[in-house]
Amino acid sequence: MRNFEALNPDFDTRVRSSFKRQAFMGFLGAEIERVEPGLVEIRLDFREELCQQHGFFHGGVVGTLADNAGGYAGFSLVAREDSILTVEYKINLIAPAKGDRLLARAQVVKSGRTLSVCEMAVFALTGESKVQCASGLGTFMTMANTSDDPVFTSSSGGS
Amino acid sequence: MRNFEALNPDFDTRVRSSFKRQAFMGFLGAEIERVEPGLVEIRLDFREELCQQHGFFHGGVVGTLADNAGGYAGFSLVAREDSILTVEYKINLIAPAKGDRLLARAQVVKSGRTLSVCEMAVFALTGESKVQCASGLGTFMTMANTSDDPVFTSSSGGS
Amino acid sequence: MRNFEALNPDFDTRVRSSFKRQAFMGFLGAEIERVEPGLVEIRLDFREELCQQHGFFHGGVVGTLADNAGGYAGFSLVAREDSILTVEYKINLIAPAKGDRLLARAQVVKSGRTLSVCEMAVFALTGESKVQCASGLGTFMTMANTSDDPVFTSSSGGS
Amino acid sequence: MRNFEALNPDFDTRVRSSFKRQAFMGFLGAEIERVEPGLVEIRLDFREELCQQHGFFHGGVVGTLADNAGGYAGFSLVAREDSILTVEYKINLIAPAKGDRLLARAQVVKSGRTLSVCEMAVFALTGESKVQCASGLGTFMTMANTSDDPVFTSSSGGS
Repeated sequence: MRNFEALNPDFDTRVRSSFKRQAFMGFLGAEIERVEPGLVEIRLDFREELCQQHGFFHGGVVGTLADNAGGYAGFSLVAREDSILTVEYKINLIAPAKGDRLLARAQVVKSGRTLSVCEMAVFALTGESKVQCASGLGTFMTMANTSDDPVFTSSSGGS
Repeated sequence: MRNFEALNPDFDTRVRSSFKRQAFMGFLGAEIERVEPGLVEIRLDFREELCQQHGFFHGGVVGTLADNAGGYAGFSLVAREDSILTVEYKINLIAPAKGDRLLARAQVVKSGRTLSVCEMAVFALTGESKVQCASGLGTFMTMANTSDDPVFTSSSGGS
Repeated sequence: MRNFEALNPDFDTRVRSSFKRQAFMGFLGAEIERVEPGLVEIRLDFREELCQQHGFFHGGVVGTLADNAGGYAGFSLVAREDSILTVEYKINLIAPAKGDRLLARAQVVKSGRTLSVCEMAVFALTGESKVQCASGLGTFMTMANTSDDPVFTSSSGGS
Repeated sequence: MRNFEALNPDFDTRVRSSFKRQAFMGFLGAEIERVEPGLVEIRLDFREELCQQHGFFHGGVVGTLADNAGGYAGFSLVAREDSILTVEYKINLIAPAKGDRLLARAQVVKSGRTLSVCEMAVFALTGESKVQCASGLGTFMTMANTSDDPVFTSSSGGS
């Protein structure tokens, strides 16, 4: 694992408060599990509404968590006055997302002035069992001086 | 646009009935808008619960619709006894997903014995305005003889 | 097809002269076939050195052409003092790259201030036959005021 | 790192002999550096013909090595009578590919009956310095009983 230093000492608070403002995360029931400089984990407990027809988490849920973890991992490294948005991501679904909960982990592999690149992994957990169900790779863009209350946005603007 | 022929004359019914069994689609409020052999459109009206913090559709919602449209576009071309699952997809978020509703369109560009490849586009619509907010490309796998009631699954199994 | 306007009236000359300075393009034998604002085609005639073990063009050659066409399509739209570099791309190889020559076509779908997104297609041609062998999607970054002799670089710097 | 077991005890020989039959690898000057079950490294020394206009390795070269390392990592795990081909890959160029040589490393993260998924990293090396210049993620397909002399093919067939 790479070591990054946060430009903003309040990175943890900023990540968590931005996350809380994303209505869709509350709608899904997702929660921030861990925040380190350049690393974020998001947790989501099982609910039937989140499933496809076999009772597994829907792939869209898996992709959403991976994207969002990547964005917040990038966001943990930007300056106080900056925000971040998703440019693109790719995800491979490698095993059924079957379990009591999902854990999405994103790690920054490159933190540039404008762009960050993250590797993402999503795990399906049941009791002690932890199976990787997805692997992803995404690009996120720092928006300098974009807001009084800058946040991560999983959406691309006038990039 | 390429022309594909459906192997299964009931492709339209199968796509719609599979879609209805995906709890997550109902939870989001998404609906099938159009089904042709090798082409599927999914529509989703605006709801605040689907947003990120600026009141736009969350990127995860955009990605979910693109993935699912791709899977069902592939599914429209498989035989009656087969199902399909998402192998992987990549999505670029190219404009804010801001509007009264989203429309995700997927078109098959390659329909192979085992794998299908789809191009996806997601549009944000408001009144007469229609702005492309995402472009995607994904791979989907046909599972032969996998079910009495075969369906598209946005999730990868023992592939 | 979208219509873009070139910021730089010399876009055609700039694309062609930049392309000529890429040693690797000369090494492969690739040539610019067509340049429009936001659209570039690259052509490559068959040579045995470019093959994998079955006598088809190697997938790396296909990917290289797609990437480079995408970069130059983006480059055709930037200002005179700017250059461009590849952030990332994804490519699906959908049919054997078997033919007398390859033609890679890239079209800009989003031309932003900082980032451009291109859709790419690669075709294998033999006589009158033209078969799409790859579909791609990539992200390219505009580097403002980066050079006296700015060019497209298929490589990412301190982005 | 995951531990995989090779189905074919001759996996090392098969990877190296298949690689030698790829004319394009010889044309570039690439060599197999390391083969383990589920892990392959490819090395390529600097040559001016492989460059873009700034004297760095061309992005197409970086992508080619990543793709090929991924394919052979997957190939190291298939049965003696099977071959493998590239379905798709995505690559992020995260730093200039500037150095005396490149090293591409691919690791299998999922080895399924039909599909393998690999994570790829490419490094630029100069003396003792080793900088990651690319991160990739790709999907590769096992072709059962496809050849008396089965090989990895970076190209997709009637998949």
